[in-house]
Amino acid sequence: MLQTRVIPPADGAYQYPLLIKRLLMSGSRYEKTREIVYRDQSRYSYLTLNERICRLANVLTEAGVKAGDTVAVMDWDSHRYLECMFAIPMIGAVIHTINVRLSPDQILFTMNHAEDKLVLVNSEFLPLYKCFESKLTTVEKTLLISDTGDKTADLPNLIGEYETLLAAASPQYRFEDFDENSVATTFYTTGTTGNPKGVYFTHRQLVLHTMAVATIMGSVEGLLCTDKVYMPITPMFHVHAWGVPYAATMLGVKQVYPGRYDPELLVELWRKEKVNFSHCVPTIMQMVLNAKAAKDVDFTGWNIIIGGSSLNRSLYDAAKAKGIQLTAAYGMSETGPLVSVAHLNEELMAGSEDERTTYRIKAGAPGVLVEAAIVDGEGNFLPSDGETQGELVLRAPWLTEGYYREPEKGAELWAGGWLHTGDVATLDSMGGIDIRDRIKDVIKTGGEWVSSLELEDLCSRHPGVREVAVVGIADPQWGERPFALLVAHEGHVIDAKALKEHLKPFVEQGHINKWAIPSQIALVTEIPKTSVGKLDKKRIRLDIIEWQSTNSAFLSTL
Amino acid sequence: MLQTRVIPPADGAYQYPLLIKRLLMSGSRYEKTREIVYRDQSRYSYLTLNERICRLANVLTEAGVKAGDTVAVMDWDSHRYLECMFAIPMIGAVIHTINVRLSPDQILFTMNHAEDKLVLVNSEFLPLYKCFESKLTTVEKTLLISDTGDKTADLPNLIGEYETLLAAASPQYRFEDFDENSVATTFYTTGTTGNPKGVYFTHRQLVLHTMAVATIMGSVEGLLCTDKVYMPITPMFHVHAWGVPYAATMLGVKQVYPGRYDPELLVELWRKEKVNFSHCVPTIMQMVLNAKAAKDVDFTGWNIIIGGSSLNRSLYDAAKAKGIQLTAAYGMSETGPLVSVAHLNEELMAGSEDERTTYRIKAGAPGVLVEAAIVDGEGNFLPSDGETQGELVLRAPWLTEGYYREPEKGAELWAGGWLHTGDVATLDSMGGIDIRDRIKDVIKTGGEWVSSLELEDLCSRHPGVREVAVVGIADPQWGERPFALLVAHEGHVIDAKALKEHLKPFVEQGHINKWAIPSQIALVTEIPKTSVGKLDKKRIRLDIIEWQSTNSAFLSTL
Repeated sequence: MLQTRVIPPADGAYQYPLLIKRLLMSGSRYEKTREIVYRDQSRYSYLTLNERICRLANVLTEAGVKAGDTVAVMDWDSHRYLECMFAIPMIGAVIHTINVRLSPDQILFTMNHAEDKLVLVNSEFLPLYKCFESKLTTVEKTLLISDTGDKTADLPNLIGEYETLLAAASPQYRFEDFDENSVATTFYTTGTTGNPKGVYFTHRQLVLHTMAVATIMGSVEGLLCTDKVYMPITPMFHVHAWGVPYAATMLGVKQVYPGRYDPELLVELWRKEKVNFSHCVPTIMQMVLNAKAAKDVDFTGWNIIIGGSSLNRSLYDAAKAKGIQLTAAYGMSETGPLVSVAHLNEELMAGSEDERTTYRIKAGAPGVLVEAAIVDGEGNFLPSDGETQGELVLRAPWLTEGYYREPEKGAELWAGGWLHTGDVATLDSMGGIDIRDRIKDVIKTGGEWVSSLELEDLCSRHPGVREVAVVGIADPQWGERPFALLVAHEGHVIDAKALKEHLKPFVEQGHINKWAIPSQIALVTEIPKTSVGKLDKKRIRLDIIEWQSTNSAFLSTL
Repeated sequence: MLQTRVIPPADGAYQYPLLIKRLLMSGSRYEKTREIVYRDQSRYSYLTLNERICRLANVLTEAGVKAGDTVAVMDWDSHRYLECMFAIPMIGAVIHTINVRLSPDQILFTMNHAEDKLVLVNSEFLPLYKCFESKLTTVEKTLLISDTGDKTADLPNLIGEYETLLAAASPQYRFEDFDENSVATTFYTTGTTGNPKGVYFTHRQLVLHTMAVATIMGSVEGLLCTDKVYMPITPMFHVHAWGVPYAATMLGVKQVYPGRYDPELLVELWRKEKVNFSHCVPTIMQMVLNAKAAKDVDFTGWNIIIGGSSLNRSLYDAAKAKGIQLTAAYGMSETGPLVSVAHLNEELMAGSEDERTTYRIKAGAPGVLVEAAIVDGEGNFLPSDGETQGELVLRAPWLTEGYYREPEKGAELWAGGWLHTGDVATLDSMGGIDIRDRIKDVIKTGGEWVSSLELEDLCSRHPGVREVAVVGIADPQWGERPFALLVAHEGHVIDAKALKEHLKPFVEQGHINKWAIPSQIALVTEIPKTSVGKLDKKRIRLDIIEWQSTNSAFLSTL
């Protein structure tokens, strides 16, 4: 280590820890009259938000929650969730944002593993909660959240209902300082095998991530400024809705929380609240475009960041045709999540519409403070030439430093001092990331590597294709062969031959090699997804094997 | 301290220190073709900037500069200065940005106090440097900067000329990690008494300040985004040109460095390079407006942040009339400097033009992560009611933690755990800061407090007044009496009686009390300023006392 000059601070000099409470000061100063909206049920100003966070802190403290304890939340996206995202870490506790789309067994596992002490439950989740409640090992108290006005419920050790408790609590709380490296949030990420893993972030990490979100989406892309209207369409249990609510609150942006994702309601809220900035995964975007309420609607002015899965051209075009500007971003649960946004720079802006679109659906260049590289299987760095593929590895001040109580998995994630994303990518000379595939989803056929993502993008350009998933299926002759699972637009039928005809030009133009053309496809009405809306390739592979063994009618072979 | 949960990182997890080198990655990724321009003498892209920083790091390392050493720079604002602002701290050394407007004795004091080891000198400063060169106690080597093409100079231990050395050095350098609390920059601030004091900032502080500048000027005000063209008009030796070059570089913004501040050249560069974002002090703004080249020019689209001294209405209106939008900001050498920008929120935007202007010339609300309060003489907090005056005290993650080698002065600055600004201010319910005066400039007359700043603002509204300074002068009857020093517009003559007539309505409307009307004024052709362009009230008071004792013709008495 270099012997630099480090000077002890003067007597009394305040050592400023980067704490989440610090994000709350500026929003209400910049825009104290701006609103936080919850469906058609609640709307209040930033001043009230500040007050309610203090009230909640008092409720939790009086319920016995102490610094270092974990407090779990089971709710749809709401103003209450936002209040929890501040109040719980601000008293030094850890908020566990429960993924309500997991199976009851998985939720049980995560709650016991995280050692949740108090849990806030929306009454809509009571039947789910009842499935595993008797097997919870650490929960001491429960708190009811209700949209219906219920003040009580059949919950053990219930301390009361959210609004009633808040109304009775003091609107003031003196939040203390503590170590900026204290854990603030935790949630579980599901892999393709094994139990969910606990990702966690510290106060310092979240403050830095918030500053980066504001910088990247404000100074770089102009998407998130104080005068925007923001509606997240990525669940708050999923990496705190990508951390954007923290940035929106810091800036004093009007926020609209839609509860559960009913596409008709999302369109209605967009119209009524004049929403112009959102983020979501491709599946939800598709649902919004297909909503009845979206028919013949011009959404011009709505900017939406797409992440979670790769953004394909057909979805981009479909959104564009309705006035929505999509921009791809890249990140994952372990990365805060923001890593990159597809920023169009001077050079790209000068390109053709088609070139700009091609760039906009890729992952973009790493954001401020993010260092990205690609490595081979031995961890050797590979060139950033836009062609060489390797595993994307990262460094940034807000990447999870491990998995909760799983030191071996944490060490594996951080092999060689870089966070391993498990994604195969190329980097270009501007640092632009192009995700080619998940390492485990790459298809090895006839000695060649085929990107399932690229193939999905090309298939999606067929006018009859509404949705597509491509996986590799074991093949005695070729090692693996790509297999395409398709959902057709109404009135369209596609078979393996039609898909081959569609893909042939891409082979001729050299985009893909001829082994990449699937010799078998399946036409289905729905593609299996994970709890966070990603293609569930594990499940898809199992389905295909079953269909093949039963010679299902879904199949179409060349 | 609360017992929060702090988890040791997983084996191998990279501990990311907030270092200045990290600010350099994104700019060239976002906008590698964007230019850094120096007058009409040099222009190059961000890729070249990165290369030149590596070359400079090699030159310095080969010259024996080690981590912890101090390297001083005497240059006008230039691309070279920007390179030094990165390369010197990036090798773990400390950059001392010398205030070339100080007296030779003061510069000598600062260089010996900072223990400068190597100094880069622009050939224009050779005569100045020669004045004290023989008395320097720590400088071992010198490096020549030349705009004229000179490769050598009569400098002891000269290692060579900047461009020649860079050309011969390698364009690659592996910058190591080190403690984020290492000192990165230092410079000296002059008080009204005693020797200049050494302010210093660490890498962590500068990274956080840079993120805040980007957030506040990007997401909040929309002033600094990647597609802007930035020209600083605040010297780089003065708090690194308010830290904006670091933010501009992080974002990949086109930057235009004007060398020394010739108003005609500034206007020419504005026109040629399409500058639309700058910052400066009121004096320089006035110089630009008065430039011959500015005559009949429409500057529409040029946004300029005004700081350093308070922005008065007449300057605001004069700039507005020529299409320039001024926005006040507040900060000081010790504060990074950014504390606040006069952000117009939803509520203020709905107000009248006059209300908006009144707000825009005040200091604005504290930026993200900044906590502000006002205290009385005993350190008790005072209410934020927009009326109660107290000393403005601050907390932010980038305030200097002391004065170099002056522990007592550092402890005084940080009395009670808050940085004492020495400014008297009010805070309103949005946190909006209204600076009323420097504590030592407040005038106590007839038992009442009169703000010299407020009085200056009111005097400046007289159509004949071009510039004004108000100070308190000892008076046997009233304790102190306000005294106004005026510069009139061409063709105008103002006496004490005319000024009284102008101020009377403000007394009648209750803006000021009747004791605030100066009973004596002086009409002069120039008002003394400090090296950074602020009113030199210490010097002004001495001048007035001399004039009073000699009954000078400058004086006009009621």
